[in-house]
Amino acid sequence: MQTRDLEYRCDEVTLRGHLVWDETIATPRPGVAVFHEGTGLGDFAMERARMVAGLGYVALAADMYGDRRQARNLQEVATVVGGLRAEPEKLRARGRAALGALAGLPQVDASRVAAIGFCFGGSVVLELARAGADLKAVVSFHGGLATRIPAGPGEVKASVLVCTGADDPLAPPDQVAAFEEEMRTAQVRDWQVISYGNTLHGFTNPAADGSMMRTALYNEQSDRRAWAAMKGLFDEVLA
Amino acid sequence: MQTRDLEYRCDEVTLRGHLVWDETIATPRPGVAVFHEGTGLGDFAMERARMVAGLGYVALAADMYGDRRQARNLQEVATVVGGLRAEPEKLRARGRAALGALAGLPQVDASRVAAIGFCFGGSVVLELARAGADLKAVVSFHGGLATRIPAGPGEVKASVLVCTGADDPLAPPDQVAAFEEEMRTAQVRDWQVISYGNTLHGFTNPAADGSMMRTALYNEQSDRRAWAAMKGLFDEVLA
Repeated sequence: MQTRDLEYRCDEVTLRGHLVWDETIATPRPGVAVFHEGTGLGDFAMERARMVAGLGYVALAADMYGDRRQARNLQEVATVVGGLRAEPEKLRARGRAALGALAGLPQVDASRVAAIGFCFGGSVVLELARAGADLKAVVSFHGGLATRIPAGPGEVKASVLVCTGADDPLAPPDQVAAFEEEMRTAQVRDWQVISYGNTLHGFTNPAADGSMMRTALYNEQSDRRAWAAMKGLFDEVLA
Repeated sequence: MQTRDLEYRCDEVTLRGHLVWDETIATPRPGVAVFHEGTGLGDFAMERARMVAGLGYVALAADMYGDRRQARNLQEVATVVGGLRAEPEKLRARGRAALGALAGLPQVDASRVAAIGFCFGGSVVLELARAGADLKAVVSFHGGLATRIPAGPGEVKASVLVCTGADDPLAPPDQVAAFEEEMRTAQVRDWQVISYGNTLHGFTNPAADGSMMRTALYNEQSDRRAWAAMKGLFDEVLA
């Protein structure tokens, strides 16, 4: 497996992603962008990119903050995430920049690109779907589901899969219900929501032990099931 | 693959199930009871039993009505389903009788039994879970999720998987939300709900073409996904 940094730009900001691909595959293959959680592009998103590359895709762990900036505590996360979420067009442009950088690589089949995201990154991929990005699929793992710019009828091209913890205080039942209603109203061609019982925020991240955020906790079973659901969807739409 | 009728009793009623198993497997294996939709035990549930047996389990398509009675139109379905749902203890006893008949077979490992159900049958397997039946898992496909006897704390032993159509008028969003709250309150150890967009009632049944019930319609994609989710759960809990 090969890895390298991949720099790309969005307006004045230099973003530094992490690319992973299996160099023994000779032909162009689907690309998958991996969007990090609120703390910034770090070990967790890179590990997921490696896992995605292990499935035979070219994986780009994107950088949404610029210069791979890290948010080191909850307050910093709230500031930087809040700033981007308050400007959804800017957030969407940053996400699109990653998709463009990925799709432009010679080893990527630009007609078959998907995006996955965790926590904040889950919100990002849903924003990209709402914006009509040319994606085969988006998968949100414990992402926030609310938006300032709901999808309009027929605008979403991607198959949408939401994997959410039934006890996640950042995606409470009312928000899940509103999201499903948004999908209906927008006549999204293909969407599904999986709600995992006894599951909090951040359930895919083994480092989520409740210390940074009391309500973010790893759940090995739900993590495994959500990853399998993602693989199932990719088998359908990226083949 | 072998098939035969299997008669069993519940109180005064003789129930005639349909058993399917792979006779080339020598050792006792898990058993899966398959509960039919409101029309009664017919081709659809038997075909699903055959598919379950193809996964290596002993499958019993149960008879919930007695003498394999059929409900030939919506009115008959409403009468017989309504009658049983009004008497949940009777419904549970009938379901338990099927589980007992299945678990008592020499080719079945009685410690590893699961139950799946479709439409009305989905409601049946959820009632069995609520009743604390000794099941490894229950899977409801487009079943009604409401109950007269909500599960009490710690009573549910089975892993619970609900596969529901996001546009199913028989399991509307409020009912799904109430079910999830029931699972939380009852501290069910393992539960998950999958909501499939653009999916109506009866989505697993190729014969559901809207003619008997306008809002029951086959959805090949959601059917495939739900079956895969069931297989994933069985791989976890019946292995």
